[in-house]
Amino acid sequence: MATVHLFTDAEVAANPAVKAVFDDIRATRKSDFVNNFWRALANEPATLARVWETIKAVMLAEGAIDPLTREMIYIAVSATNGCTYCVQSHTAAARAKGLTDRQHGELLSIIALAAQTNSLATAMQVPADPEFEVR
Amino acid sequence: MATVHLFTDAEVAANPAVKAVFDDIRATRKSDFVNNFWRALANEPATLARVWETIKAVMLAEGAIDPLTREMIYIAVSATNGCTYCVQSHTAAARAKGLTDRQHGELLSIIALAAQTNSLATAMQVPADPEFEVR
Amino acid sequence: MATVHLFTDAEVAANPAVKAVFDDIRATRKSDFVNNFWRALANEPATLARVWETIKAVMLAEGAIDPLTREMIYIAVSATNGCTYCVQSHTAAARAKGLTDRQHGELLSIIALAAQTNSLATAMQVPADPEFEVR
Amino acid sequence: MATVHLFTDAEVAANPAVKAVFDDIRATRKSDFVNNFWRALANEPATLARVWETIKAVMLAEGAIDPLTREMIYIAVSATNGCTYCVQSHTAAARAKGLTDRQHGELLSIIALAAQTNSLATAMQVPADPEFEVR
Amino acid sequence: MATVHLFTDAEVAANPAVKAVFDDIRATRKSDFVNNFWRALANEPATLARVWETIKAVMLAEGAIDPLTREMIYIAVSATNGCTYCVQSHTAAARAKGLTDRQHGELLSIIALAAQTNSLATAMQVPADPEFEVR
Amino acid sequence: MATVHLFTDAEVAANPAVKAVFDDIRATRKSDFVNNFWRALANEPATLARVWETIKAVMLAEGAIDPLTREMIYIAVSATNGCTYCVQSHTAAARAKGLTDRQHGELLSIIALAAQTNSLATAMQVPADPEFEVR
Repeated sequence: MATVHLFTDAEVAANPAVKAVFDDIRATRKSDFVNNFWRALANEPATLARVWETIKAVMLAEGAIDPLTREMIYIAVSATNGCTYCVQSHTAAARAKGLTDRQHGELLSIIALAAQTNSLATAMQVPADPEFEVR
Repeated sequence: MATVHLFTDAEVAANPAVKAVFDDIRATRKSDFVNNFWRALANEPATLARVWETIKAVMLAEGAIDPLTREMIYIAVSATNGCTYCVQSHTAAARAKGLTDRQHGELLSIIALAAQTNSLATAMQVPADPEFEVR
Repeated sequence: MATVHLFTDAEVAANPAVKAVFDDIRATRKSDFVNNFWRALANEPATLARVWETIKAVMLAEGAIDPLTREMIYIAVSATNGCTYCVQSHTAAARAKGLTDRQHGELLSIIALAAQTNSLATAMQVPADPEFEVR
Repeated sequence: MATVHLFTDAEVAANPAVKAVFDDIRATRKSDFVNNFWRALANEPATLARVWETIKAVMLAEGAIDPLTREMIYIAVSATNGCTYCVQSHTAAARAKGLTDRQHGELLSIIALAAQTNSLATAMQVPADPEFEVR
Repeated sequence: MATVHLFTDAEVAANPAVKAVFDDIRATRKSDFVNNFWRALANEPATLARVWETIKAVMLAEGAIDPLTREMIYIAVSATNGCTYCVQSHTAAARAKGLTDRQHGELLSIIALAAQTNSLATAMQVPADPEFEVR
Repeated sequence: MATVHLFTDAEVAANPAVKAVFDDIRATRKSDFVNNFWRALANEPATLARVWETIKAVMLAEGAIDPLTREMIYIAVSATNGCTYCVQSHTAAARAKGLTDRQHGELLSIIALAAQTNSLATAMQVPADPEFEVR
């Protein structure tokens, strides 16, 4: 049950600022499918444009971390934040970028291990080791 | 201010179950330095052994995700969970495994982007797209 | 799938402690509709009464922050905690108190910006500036 | 670095509404020591009184869960929320109520296990089993 | 909408590593019912085995904390992490181990109180009291 | 203990991309003081520029929500995320924009109330009321 209206393609077409972003999403992804996240964000064209520009810069531009690894990091954050939609959409995105079942299984085990040691370190209030200092 | 005592090397030496794990940590990492997380966990030898075995299996064994990527995923979870100690220790660990400043910067930007879209998707309660269904 | 029974109006009527709170909710809100949160809390009348009294004191009493702003703050916390029900119920409550689409859009962009910078500050472990000290 | 002023005993003595709560804290706990949480809350006497009344009702009144178990639950929530102060103060409170090192160790292992399976269940988006339905 | 396939009994039977764990789950719990969490984890037999071994050690073995209390702590962590599935499955598990409605109501009030004071302590950045120091 | 280097003014001056953002921060805020968050972000000039542009658009541009309310929402998210630095810096920012002690006290009580009801709604898995549906 969304808290905002989801834009239909007709409504997108009627709003030039929204349409420009949707056109770029479709062209960039080479696919007509635009998922609900963008249809919800369309209510606020300025945020829509800003988030899409950030995604292009962070997730799609050339960089030192490969695209599949970026998606795994995205899933790790989303699972930790408990964001249902984000876990589902980025797991689908990761599979589309080549995530294998074995990699997915390892990714889950790393996320789970980190959650486990995070709560232990916090519950024990482990003090920082001076050896970790950035020079 | 830790909520548990941190084991000194003398106390470790006096406790065979703890010593066995510390010896393995030192041998596996080829370093004498054992960080405070393990000195805190030493209060509970069974948990100490279990967590270390899990870390060896998940972070150090052969797998489909390379060791540096595993550390980046670990940092992503730790930052999202707000675990100060874990962010510091695993950033140090990632640097030791070759994380460059540029990769670190990109990692931070992915974590921040995911946090941003996670909160948007949750605040808008975006419904799942049927296209994301796992077959 | 609730983990507790949801009280029907007949069950409310049969429990004087619960009925007193429901009567006050209806009188205070000038509406017969009582949402599921209270029907779930009705299993524990003491908690039901305490939470309702706190909501009246914090959200409804005269104060230095206007009622609509209070609801926006409530939504910000609920989205950050990932509380699906709370996001939905307080977005509806905020709209009933006059939240416009434009305000909602801006609210979402502030929540998302804060989530983004929160994760950056935590991941970088930014040290406090002495200038922030409360005198 | 607190974001609010911490009330000294002299300031408490000069504010009747605050003094009444502090007197009750001291009388209830049979100790002169009042920890910083209350000295910070003293800036807002209405919240101070309400939180203290809730703590008395929830943590100190007769009930179906024994006082030490209540503190363990409190620690579990605080560690999961990453609340440094709360982990420290309630670990101290639990020890004062008889928490043994062995119980503390087991508590930590349960918290860590739950964090681990929580993140797995969320990352895999495990659907609810109909068998869990409350009748 | 799961992000992984859920193993059917036929698929479990066809995979010896998975079958061994499922057999042990059924024997240990003296019940044929195996809930979806395990059917999802079955995609990664090594993680499946490790998580089940940890659950047996932490939740089922003799210890200083009784089994019902362990489930209450588990629920507290799961509710705080916002893990829908975990809240539902462990509330069902706690009821099966004898959790009464009154205990459940008290558990909820402790979880809610801790969430409340956690956010207050964090928002006020309450400094640690030296009295909490572990000797 | 930061995980990244904090740029000094000399280092800022030597990096044109960073200097441009710092100059704009100083001009926009009409103050020479630049807090550590930006000195940490300076390691990644592209992220630095993007985050600052977003802050200008979301927090400083004309809008339907007044600047002080925006800061209160920011604090609410930061306290809920447990971001120490963000709570401290944005509480200072809110005070600079006119936040009174009374407003701060009310803000804290709203944050705490929402945290409390969030955990109750999640622990009880309260189902959405159809009345909340967005038309």
